[in-house]
Amino acid sequence: MKKNTIDLQEKLQELLLAERNNYLQGKVADYIPALANVKPDLMGISVATIDGKIAGAGDYQQPFSIQSISKVFGLVMAMNRIGDPLWQRVRMEPSGQPFNSIIQLEWEKGIPRNPVINAGAILISDVLTSHFSASKLAFLTFVRKLAGNDNIHVDNQVYLSELKHGNLNAALAYLMKSFGNIEAEVPDVLSHYFTQCSIVMSCQQLATSLLFLANKGIDPRSQKRICSARDAHKVNAILSTSGMYDQSGEFAFSVGLPAKSGVGGGVIAVVPGYGVICTWSPPLNSFGNSTVGMNLMANITEELALSIYH
Amino acid sequence: MKKNTIDLQEKLQELLLAERNNYLQGKVADYIPALANVKPDLMGISVATIDGKIAGAGDYQQPFSIQSISKVFGLVMAMNRIGDPLWQRVRMEPSGQPFNSIIQLEWEKGIPRNPVINAGAILISDVLTSHFSASKLAFLTFVRKLAGNDNIHVDNQVYLSELKHGNLNAALAYLMKSFGNIEAEVPDVLSHYFTQCSIVMSCQQLATSLLFLANKGIDPRSQKRICSARDAHKVNAILSTSGMYDQSGEFAFSVGLPAKSGVGGGVIAVVPGYGVICTWSPPLNSFGNSTVGMNLMANITEELALSIYH
Amino acid sequence: MKKNTIDLQEKLQELLLAERNNYLQGKVADYIPALANVKPDLMGISVATIDGKIAGAGDYQQPFSIQSISKVFGLVMAMNRIGDPLWQRVRMEPSGQPFNSIIQLEWEKGIPRNPVINAGAILISDVLTSHFSASKLAFLTFVRKLAGNDNIHVDNQVYLSELKHGNLNAALAYLMKSFGNIEAEVPDVLSHYFTQCSIVMSCQQLATSLLFLANKGIDPRSQKRICSARDAHKVNAILSTSGMYDQSGEFAFSVGLPAKSGVGGGVIAVVPGYGVICTWSPPLNSFGNSTVGMNLMANITEELALSIYH
Amino acid sequence: MKKNTIDLQEKLQELLLAERNNYLQGKVADYIPALANVKPDLMGISVATIDGKIAGAGDYQQPFSIQSISKVFGLVMAMNRIGDPLWQRVRMEPSGQPFNSIIQLEWEKGIPRNPVINAGAILISDVLTSHFSASKLAFLTFVRKLAGNDNIHVDNQVYLSELKHGNLNAALAYLMKSFGNIEAEVPDVLSHYFTQCSIVMSCQQLATSLLFLANKGIDPRSQKRICSARDAHKVNAILSTSGMYDQSGEFAFSVGLPAKSGVGGGVIAVVPGYGVICTWSPPLNSFGNSTVGMNLMANITEELALSIYH
Repeated sequence: MKKNTIDLQEKLQELLLAERNNYLQGKVADYIPALANVKPDLMGISVATIDGKIAGAGDYQQPFSIQSISKVFGLVMAMNRIGDPLWQRVRMEPSGQPFNSIIQLEWEKGIPRNPVINAGAILISDVLTSHFSASKLAFLTFVRKLAGNDNIHVDNQVYLSELKHGNLNAALAYLMKSFGNIEAEVPDVLSHYFTQCSIVMSCQQLATSLLFLANKGIDPRSQKRICSARDAHKVNAILSTSGMYDQSGEFAFSVGLPAKSGVGGGVIAVVPGYGVICTWSPPLNSFGNSTVGMNLMANITEELALSIYH
Repeated sequence: MKKNTIDLQEKLQELLLAERNNYLQGKVADYIPALANVKPDLMGISVATIDGKIAGAGDYQQPFSIQSISKVFGLVMAMNRIGDPLWQRVRMEPSGQPFNSIIQLEWEKGIPRNPVINAGAILISDVLTSHFSASKLAFLTFVRKLAGNDNIHVDNQVYLSELKHGNLNAALAYLMKSFGNIEAEVPDVLSHYFTQCSIVMSCQQLATSLLFLANKGIDPRSQKRICSARDAHKVNAILSTSGMYDQSGEFAFSVGLPAKSGVGGGVIAVVPGYGVICTWSPPLNSFGNSTVGMNLMANITEELALSIYH
Repeated sequence: MKKNTIDLQEKLQELLLAERNNYLQGKVADYIPALANVKPDLMGISVATIDGKIAGAGDYQQPFSIQSISKVFGLVMAMNRIGDPLWQRVRMEPSGQPFNSIIQLEWEKGIPRNPVINAGAILISDVLTSHFSASKLAFLTFVRKLAGNDNIHVDNQVYLSELKHGNLNAALAYLMKSFGNIEAEVPDVLSHYFTQCSIVMSCQQLATSLLFLANKGIDPRSQKRICSARDAHKVNAILSTSGMYDQSGEFAFSVGLPAKSGVGGGVIAVVPGYGVICTWSPPLNSFGNSTVGMNLMANITEELALSIYH
Repeated sequence: MKKNTIDLQEKLQELLLAERNNYLQGKVADYIPALANVKPDLMGISVATIDGKIAGAGDYQQPFSIQSISKVFGLVMAMNRIGDPLWQRVRMEPSGQPFNSIIQLEWEKGIPRNPVINAGAILISDVLTSHFSASKLAFLTFVRKLAGNDNIHVDNQVYLSELKHGNLNAALAYLMKSFGNIEAEVPDVLSHYFTQCSIVMSCQQLATSLLFLANKGIDPRSQKRICSARDAHKVNAILSTSGMYDQSGEFAFSVGLPAKSGVGGGVIAVVPGYGVICTWSPPLNSFGNSTVGMNLMANITEELALSIYH
């Protein structure tokens, strides 16, 4: 396969160069000031493989707000903690709705469609809040261990900003609580949720942290099991049908990898049996996905023949 | 990989035997008499590989009503015929709704979410009706060529029965027409749609017919190109996010293959780079998918390590 | 009360004069050519009282397309014909949705919210089609008798135009049929529905025809009972909560009478114990109600102190 | 009219006696313990007229939790305080949905359909919270003045219980806030809302308090103007189309008066130009309206010929 013979570092440089001006087509998230102030022309890409290669180009070592990419870590923690009963409280189906729709949640009696839309991630935050004595610390510790870096931290300014503008997420949480599907107090759940969204990490840190998803649950560097092979499979399945908001189908069309984006401009994609790709460029398209990130993912997948649908 | 060393024929026998009594957990589709009368304990499985192997067990050579599996053939024909403009008239996103929901169609101004829910398949039928002088014959010819069998035909009793009970599909068609998204006359479109749904094929015929989807668009037997590699990728992507009605996410979880089911009890699954699996057992679960088919697909994928998410 | 002492004829002239130029604020219905061609500056008003007075101003004797006002006649006929079982098939609740929404109809399993939204009126058309051997003729005969005029007829050009552009109504009909709530064949039901919509009548004819609704079911001229007092009450109740499309609440606010509008620009309002008002001016506001008609109804109700909410 | 000649006191006794056992057909609200403990067989009825008559039967002097009936007082206060700009923030249309639906609120961008569904009443609570320095006291003072009784108070146990079980209302409030349609802090708004819901009053107090609505805004006892005639008209219009939850249309059918119910089992109905009726019986039907209250209202309206639709 191409992916084994190509000069990865050179390829990443080349792909990034081609996108140099495309950040102009998107719009940096501005629902909170802390995100709106990010420089729009920053961009980076990193690839980590299960056989130990790491490559990167551009601003791939600069930390950014991971936002919804944190849903992947939270999901793994919750599956590890409570196992299959989790799936009584959240489904695993695509939503076919904007990421923050409250309509479907009322229709389906407070059971979110999947764990990577906002309602689902808030539910996961409830699981963590209820099952860890200090869930925020536990989350940070989990991520630091995966990234092998104890300096990973929460951007407090982003956190406070999220909290202040989190009315829609509060509505989702209270609606689920009205259906009995939130156990902890809503302000505690939201505090956890916004904390994990406000973590800052670099492309390289994200790519290496998530390698276990490409390797049946085992971190290839430490050979430690992070989750069961079955759960790694589940995460990849969910990311394939639902990871890119209401553009998940189009992403499957044009890329063909399990992936998750965040409004901070990051995108991660898992290549089962090969590795993880992470891109970052803050300006977003109308679906909330990084414009440059979409392009980079399509191009690298094409160049390296990585799609799972071929 | 296990898939290359196992005795396929023996494995299929074994898997089928294990399901012997599980048909009792489902319910044969009864919205039309012609389907309701099928014997519930019939079951078959067939696997065809791109390197030429064919295996089967049980009633894998008995023809059954392919129903919604016909949407796969129709989609390929429409992409071949009109190319990318197709995607102005139908989206490629998961629906997050029951297969026949009219609500989403009104919300989204008559643009179906994807080509494998009913509204989308009716739209595809409109494309075929409008662009072929004899679309039903063209469809049948296409399928016969793929299956290498000129005896494949339409079950006229099923067709008439569908037509008589097709009020919901008529509602979908007229709603799309009210938004200007149906070009031909609705009765003609529905006549085409119900015709393609009423084709009868066996597991073995379906598995071999669809091998081009596992082989980047090229039929491995004839080496003829059926569609572009890019379009084969698209079909597999759509089937992965949306092929199993409102159980598509769960199917991705437990199986992990592009697939399409029909209310006749058939299921086809594409294994990119390997081959195609087809199962048949008429009794359905509450989502409209074959109960035994779901089990068989999960078990064979597990045994042969076929999932695309590992 | 003011309504008994005022010079009605003079008042109507005065009110109409004040609206002279306000037709410019609306837009004539253009979904079918036959309606789009009506002169926008035509306007008329007529009042008929149960004690025998008739007054009118402007084009109050010119026939126009009654459109949805026909739903009132159809409802009375259907109640007379099948009685209370009607309310098993259609509810009597406000819809809180645009007049032609298909969403609510799917939610509520094919039971329309009330008989004066499109779905409900189509259901009424099914009742008439199923229970009269020649329902169109029966309808016309009923209206002619009420108006005391045998020349009232159907505008065939409007009828054909409606039929051609009736895809959304066809969708509603087929959806109800899929739930088993339409008995006759859909094309027959729609043919009846569009026929009754295409009747042409003048303001004066409409006002006198509906006097029985202001008089507990008895036509004050002939002293014949047209419907039971209880059914007249029901019609007035429905028209109060639902007669003016999604502007029914605002109409209650600013006018305060049971009323029904049509996209031909007509509006009728019932004043229980007093009489019936009918206005006509083709240009419509964004809710599909006559702009000038809304003003005229508010002003005459104010001047004559007719509101039922005071 | 019958209403002027009948012996009111005797008639109320008779109507109440006929309902003696019908409370068994309903179910006392049990979403909070404080309401669930009310004795189900209590029942009362009171009529107050604008010419000074007061009559009552049964437990008509026993205070009960007025719940949603408080929405009427709040609406009048808010209209008095901010005038027409109120209608930029809440519509006046029937909802066609259960009283607490969040779906419509998302569809319509955080603008509630009307002020007597929960979302609308929470919005009114926001207006009061934002425009009165001590809105709860102002509310209580307003009600006490109308009832002429300084002992009217808030049931603190009900208040605390509402607060604890108010998750759905919190969801509605946060959703509106996310659309920018709530100005104060959500906990403050909800605290006001639950306070006004928790007021306890008797049938007689409610009937006399609301006489101004039957008298064009003027309290007939003190001859003081409580609100403009136009606003009294608006309140009656809203109560006619929307006051009885998703049974408003049926109530118009069978009763025909502007009315408002509460889950405490109370119902008030305004008879313009005549007076106010209040009934109380805790067991509710499936729509959340008092079963006995529905019957009593239908019967008294029939007996006294009070409907506005005749």
